[in-house]
Amino acid sequence: METREMNTRSFSSSHNRDLPYKVGVPPKQKLWKEFLSALKETFFSDDPLRPFKDQSRSRKFVLGMQAVFPIFEWGRTYNLAKFKGDLIAGLTIASLCIPQDIGYAKLANLAPQYGLYSSFVPPLIYAFMGSSRDIAIGPVAVVSLLLGTLLQEEIDPINNALEYRRLAFTATFFAGITQATLGILRLGFLIDFLSHAAIVGFMGGAAITIALQQLKGFLGIKKFTKNTNIVSVMQSVLTSAHHGWNWQTIVIGATFLVFLLFAKYIGKKNKKLFWVPAIAPLISVVLSTFFVYITHAEKKGVQIVQHIEKGINRPSVKEIYFTGDYLLKGVRIGIVAGMVALTEAVAIGRTFASMKDYQIDGNKEMVALGAMNVAGSMTSCYVATGSFSRSAVNYMAGCQTAVSNIVMSIVVFLTLQFITPLFKYTPNAILSSIIISAVIGLIDYDAAILIWKIDKFDFVACMGAFFGVVFVSVEIGLLIAVSISFAKLLLQVTRPRTALLGKIPRTHVYRNIQQYPEASKVPGVLIIRVDSAIYFSNSNYIKERILRWLTDEEEQLKAASLPKIQYLIVEMSPVTDIDTSGIHALEELHRSLQKRSVQLILANPGPVVMDKLHESKVSNLIGEDNIFLTVADAIQTCSPKFSDEV
Amino acid sequence: METREMNTRSFSSSHNRDLPYKVGVPPKQKLWKEFLSALKETFFSDDPLRPFKDQSRSRKFVLGMQAVFPIFEWGRTYNLAKFKGDLIAGLTIASLCIPQDIGYAKLANLAPQYGLYSSFVPPLIYAFMGSSRDIAIGPVAVVSLLLGTLLQEEIDPINNALEYRRLAFTATFFAGITQATLGILRLGFLIDFLSHAAIVGFMGGAAITIALQQLKGFLGIKKFTKNTNIVSVMQSVLTSAHHGWNWQTIVIGATFLVFLLFAKYIGKKNKKLFWVPAIAPLISVVLSTFFVYITHAEKKGVQIVQHIEKGINRPSVKEIYFTGDYLLKGVRIGIVAGMVALTEAVAIGRTFASMKDYQIDGNKEMVALGAMNVAGSMTSCYVATGSFSRSAVNYMAGCQTAVSNIVMSIVVFLTLQFITPLFKYTPNAILSSIIISAVIGLIDYDAAILIWKIDKFDFVACMGAFFGVVFVSVEIGLLIAVSISFAKLLLQVTRPRTALLGKIPRTHVYRNIQQYPEASKVPGVLIIRVDSAIYFSNSNYIKERILRWLTDEEEQLKAASLPKIQYLIVEMSPVTDIDTSGIHALEELHRSLQKRSVQLILANPGPVVMDKLHESKVSNLIGEDNIFLTVADAIQTCSPKFSDEV
Repeated sequence: METREMNTRSFSSSHNRDLPYKVGVPPKQKLWKEFLSALKETFFSDDPLRPFKDQSRSRKFVLGMQAVFPIFEWGRTYNLAKFKGDLIAGLTIASLCIPQDIGYAKLANLAPQYGLYSSFVPPLIYAFMGSSRDIAIGPVAVVSLLLGTLLQEEIDPINNALEYRRLAFTATFFAGITQATLGILRLGFLIDFLSHAAIVGFMGGAAITIALQQLKGFLGIKKFTKNTNIVSVMQSVLTSAHHGWNWQTIVIGATFLVFLLFAKYIGKKNKKLFWVPAIAPLISVVLSTFFVYITHAEKKGVQIVQHIEKGINRPSVKEIYFTGDYLLKGVRIGIVAGMVALTEAVAIGRTFASMKDYQIDGNKEMVALGAMNVAGSMTSCYVATGSFSRSAVNYMAGCQTAVSNIVMSIVVFLTLQFITPLFKYTPNAILSSIIISAVIGLIDYDAAILIWKIDKFDFVACMGAFFGVVFVSVEIGLLIAVSISFAKLLLQVTRPRTALLGKIPRTHVYRNIQQYPEASKVPGVLIIRVDSAIYFSNSNYIKERILRWLTDEEEQLKAASLPKIQYLIVEMSPVTDIDTSGIHALEELHRSLQKRSVQLILANPGPVVMDKLHESKVSNLIGEDNIFLTVADAIQTCSPKFSDEV
Repeated sequence: METREMNTRSFSSSHNRDLPYKVGVPPKQKLWKEFLSALKETFFSDDPLRPFKDQSRSRKFVLGMQAVFPIFEWGRTYNLAKFKGDLIAGLTIASLCIPQDIGYAKLANLAPQYGLYSSFVPPLIYAFMGSSRDIAIGPVAVVSLLLGTLLQEEIDPINNALEYRRLAFTATFFAGITQATLGILRLGFLIDFLSHAAIVGFMGGAAITIALQQLKGFLGIKKFTKNTNIVSVMQSVLTSAHHGWNWQTIVIGATFLVFLLFAKYIGKKNKKLFWVPAIAPLISVVLSTFFVYITHAEKKGVQIVQHIEKGINRPSVKEIYFTGDYLLKGVRIGIVAGMVALTEAVAIGRTFASMKDYQIDGNKEMVALGAMNVAGSMTSCYVATGSFSRSAVNYMAGCQTAVSNIVMSIVVFLTLQFITPLFKYTPNAILSSIIISAVIGLIDYDAAILIWKIDKFDFVACMGAFFGVVFVSVEIGLLIAVSISFAKLLLQVTRPRTALLGKIPRTHVYRNIQQYPEASKVPGVLIIRVDSAIYFSNSNYIKERILRWLTDEEEQLKAASLPKIQYLIVEMSPVTDIDTSGIHALEELHRSLQKRSVQLILANPGPVVMDKLHESKVSNLIGEDNIFLTVADAIQTCSPKFSDEV
């Protein structure tokens, strides 16, 4: 091939086993090409335009439509068998979502119908635009709590209900805009900065906080704190113990909580009975409502829902604040709630996609979620996203496509049109029980234990987020989670690992002597592997650390009266990149070693490093002869005797 | 040895060449030990307590004193020969610093004597506590400009001179506290986050800005903008062109600027004549002052210094704001100015230390700089740090120890006591010329060109900082520099490189086929190297990128009707760490590959990765037999025929 012939710099045909193979310098790339490829990897790593290549114009249009509305793609192969699965799944998640929605709306300090509204419009939009087949869209506990907490800091939800609601729609609108913008600008990778560990901790903390909030409804307390931290809540609970608790409420709530938890247990024991916990909430609502209706328990102090507006969503475009003070507040709250909602939806989408082995396109998914929330904000919905518990039920009930969301949406529509007045006598305690049994699933002990086992630093992030949410507030927990995640990344690029290498017996392989205690050091040679790209943030540390390895080793050798170190080999395989500070550090290292009469040798620098060593002429300084393809080649030159002992 | 016998997991004695060598699992470390060692590498990577080990108590006290005051260490071997060098160097830098100090004080909007004060107390303190032998301490241009800009945003320096000065001392105090705190808490590595490239750009931009500011004195303009950006300054200059320029001032300024630049040129051409540019400023001051005195040019509109207070620094502890509104402002300005001053001093210290091959202790250095600024703030000084130009002169004049700073300090003391009234007739234009000729050295074209050659992203950071300073303000430039530096680090951990590997002819070595175009792919096997630790920020990207490599390859093979891929080898050598998200990604990758009937194989996972694979049981999932020490070993199993073709 031509390229092989051209690249004479890296290929010496006179090569044989005794002459070590030369380290290749990659063919020089044009600046513009290099820039474009970096841009592509960053923003278009999924190569979204590939199917469009070499297609006719009309085909391109069809592909474009299919890209924005995946329903046109999978819809063409839709059939009755698939619909059967979707119908059953849709009905199951509808029965689960209706009582949950009413409860979650309360977490967001909104009237119950707003929860149902949010399970009607957004799932419809998502079904057309989303790429996940298993996600169940609607209001979720954590986002409802977060939104409620952030909003009530700005406006009192009871005395200024209208303004509060308007701000909620404003926040929802900007949550959608944030999500869609991230997708369109292909900045979806930003949500990857919330680590898995941080999410586990945050979710667990949020679950505890939400469960604690339910004590209000569960115990029938009238005066309850607005703070969400555990200390304030327990104070509220204890100070109201004497006169504020209502025993009838507690009996109803506790009975059904036991029922719900038992149903959950059955579903867990036997996967085929997944529908038992799925319909248990609706059964609880029906039974308890009927019970209150015939006993008139509401007159004994059992708090009931009282009123849910009948009819479907009203338009709410005009209620969104597009000017004034509340605009900025809405934007801020929207960005936070939108990011959290996005993280949850994308995590769910990925989980189920990997279970069924299909790909979901993160950026496209964000556009779909954004569009559905923007549409939602204009039709009296608040922030909707993927619900983990309902998506799991959806999956187990055998959903095939997003049609199950359409089925659910239709059921919610019928509920809004005809059944809502029947919820009048539903006791609040039941809603609390349903929420408690739902959020318990968000506490993922097993994941936390696994995190502890695998990575202690991750565990700190996880616990930081958890305790931040439980003891301070949802926002602080989130902030802690993000900060610890960032700190971890920065720490890694500031204090990378270095390792001493030794020769593994009977091989030509050199490995970390900590990992392979049987590996033996080479007399007169110190082999150090640097385990990170060398950047400004760590170049000084790496230089000084290498010199310290040398000093330590020389002291030991001196104590044992062994020969001095003559060669220092730096194994560069893991050094994937180097910047100007790194090049300077290498230069300084070389100079320091020269003063100690130690020769610096580089083994296996990668293409980027090799290129930069050449550009900066540092390769001349160190000497091209002192750059080898492998540590074994280097040893063959420095200590040929040792090298042959296999 | 015992440890070898114990570690049976990693060492199988029945090993021979045909059975591939097993990947070692490192001996399990105790959590506490692991935590301590991580802590030690992060904060005590220089092992500062090593000399204290196994020493008597009195010896420990002496060592402790020497650690805080290095003068007690090097002072014991001080002799007359060294003093000769220090004396000459001290006198040289004194002659350079006196005119510079007067000019720099103006940049900070302070009266000229404050510049001299800051060259008297801080160098004395530094001489006792600092560990650099070459640095010359005093006010510097960039920090003076930065401090002046930040302070005048809060208080008008002309109408509220006293309050302005008090805030300056407050900021100096907290700059010192910031520096000392970073040193004591061993957070010195934080300043490494300002990359070399960003500093080059920032310094160049600041030099241009400072030179532009000098147009006021140089052209004798009376009404001048307070903004530092180039647009405002040029507007000021042009609008005053008709009546505001003073030709006598221009003649004096231009003449001496030419003289100074010529002196600089001589010094550059012949390194032995380094003293020519070093004393040229003082000569200019003497000559021009004499000239103005005899011609009475000040009556023709040539602006002169007019008054410098005689006598040494007055105490200023009581002028520092320890309460009130200005406290917080002082803290904020102090932190920014302190960090920038620190960055400059540490960069200078490291440069000269590596030239003479001695180590300077970053954290100790920060404590010294902090202490000297705290002391300075109490004795009417503003923020002092290491000056690059004066340190270079100090080095070339043959300084041996920090005693040269003491000599300089004594000369400044004598100047303050006896000579200051003589500066009355010194024209401002001369000070401007001196500053211009001094800051020109901060514009480092060569470094910028090298950065362009080595790393384009670094160049963007460099130019971002440069244009930010020149076109907006010093703070914005600094902010841009820090942001781009961080963005680069984050990008690296979000979008790491991956590479396809091939076998290098006639070896058992597998390398990047982009770097070595002659390397050949192994039929039926895809070898991919992941060039980064796998963390939450990149785990999804890496998983999807690997699958995309596979899809691309399979398409090509299909088109050429070649056999399908059966094995996917992930070369893990550069994967130095993995977190829980990374483990999940590997699990998902394994599952996706299984569905495509491709076997996942890992080559050379490091100790940390191996440990976590075991803890999470993912190694069982993938199969211990599918984890190999080298790619060559893996190929021997997957494709034995190919492996033998050497």
